[in-house]
Amino acid sequence: MKARVHVMLKDGVLDPQGEAVRHALGSLGFEGVAGVRQGKVIELDLAEGTTEDTVREMCERLLANTVIESYSVDLG
Amino acid sequence: MKARVHVMLKDGVLDPQGEAVRHALGSLGFEGVAGVRQGKVIELDLAEGTTEDTVREMCERLLANTVIESYSVDLG
Repeated sequence: MKARVHVMLKDGVLDPQGEAVRHALGSLGFEGVAGVRQGKVIELDLAEGTTEDTVREMCERLLANTVIESYSVDLG
Repeated sequence: MKARVHVMLKDGVLDPQGEAVRHALGSLGFEGVAGVRQGKVIELDLAEGTTEDTVREMCERLLANTVIESYSVDLG
């Protein structure tokens, strides 16, 4: 089974990568880009029957720094 | 309006970050993790009426290296 985890910086945490992308898009002539946030997506190929709780534990222990990052889990 | 772009390494392109995560999950005692791929997710806050074609152009010109990366666009 597959699981997809999104890890994003929490609101209020400065995102210099996203800011750099926003600036670069403006330089390329794309107008109206009010904000950009960049995060990670992690696709996991897991044993059948792995629960969402297990994936959340992976996030808490390894995949996300929960001090500054939030995560979401999609199974399927 | 919001758009979300996923950028992943293409199949067959070595993903050392994903491999490191897979190994680390095993070291932490998570079993059955057959594979991990890590990519980027970029959330864009765009002017109303921005088309998917415009976002795809952003991907082609800046957000993805289409030689080794594939991307997908979700508007909404």
